Amino acid sequence: MPLHCINTLPPNRTMPNSLFADIPDELPNELMETLAEGSGCRVERIVSRGHRSPERFWYDQEESEWVLVVKGEARLLIERAGETEEVAMTAGDWIDLPAHTRHRVEWTAPDEETIWLAVFHP
Amino acid sequence: MPLHCINTLPPNRTMPNSLFADIPDELPNELMETLAEGSGCRVERIVSRGHRSPERFWYDQEESEWVLVVKGEARLLIERAGETEEVAMTAGDWIDLPAHTRHRVEWTAPDEETIWLAVFHP
Repeated sequence: MPLHCINTLPPNRTMPNSLFADIPDELPNELMETLAEGSGCRVERIVSRGHRSPERFWYDQEESEWVLVVKGEARLLIERAGETEEVAMTAGDWIDLPAHTRHRVEWTAPDEETIWLAVFHP
Repeated sequence: MPLHCINTLPPNRTMPNSLFADIPDELPNELMETLAEGSGCRVERIVSRGHRSPERFWYDQEESEWVLVVKGEARLLIERAGETEEVAMTAGDWIDLPAHTRHRVEWTAPDEETIWLAVFHP
């Protein structure tokens, strides 16, 4: 009786996308890409490598931003109730920034990518 | 002249939340938590440890679901154009499932947590 190979895999295999793929060697600016978008909701990947917000620049956004550090390290400055707070973030850390919460990226790791996953929502 | 300690940290430090925190030792069922919610958009953490969808159960959702594996490993089955596809996912992998894309969780790693980040969107 001949041996035969039994393929236990389904015939159709789909490759998922990866947040760790397609990162250029050179990143003169942060890389921002929209991964999904529905009415009032947008998922973005942001890749930083030592980038920080320009001096005296603060984000002040119309949308709320839920943001996760998937890989790397970063420090945000956030204004809340007139006070400036620092938030140090590493892989797995997330924060939800309500619309018009003034914030800036104070530091990102210089020697590796920091990969952010941002969900902008109403 | 007395030595004094110079604190270079801002006075207010905020701890971010972590996707890796607050996972119970026992997980009789998958753990699902809403982390952020805006009109028409919801961010959830899902923690699996060997969980899979019940036999013959398929998700068929009103909302689209963008889903990322943050940690661990999983296999999804997805129906598309009448065909069943398998998608093997590991950390960093993501897929966007349009509303009413029938899918099921076929397998998750039995010996570690698989942490999913799901964004349900219109």
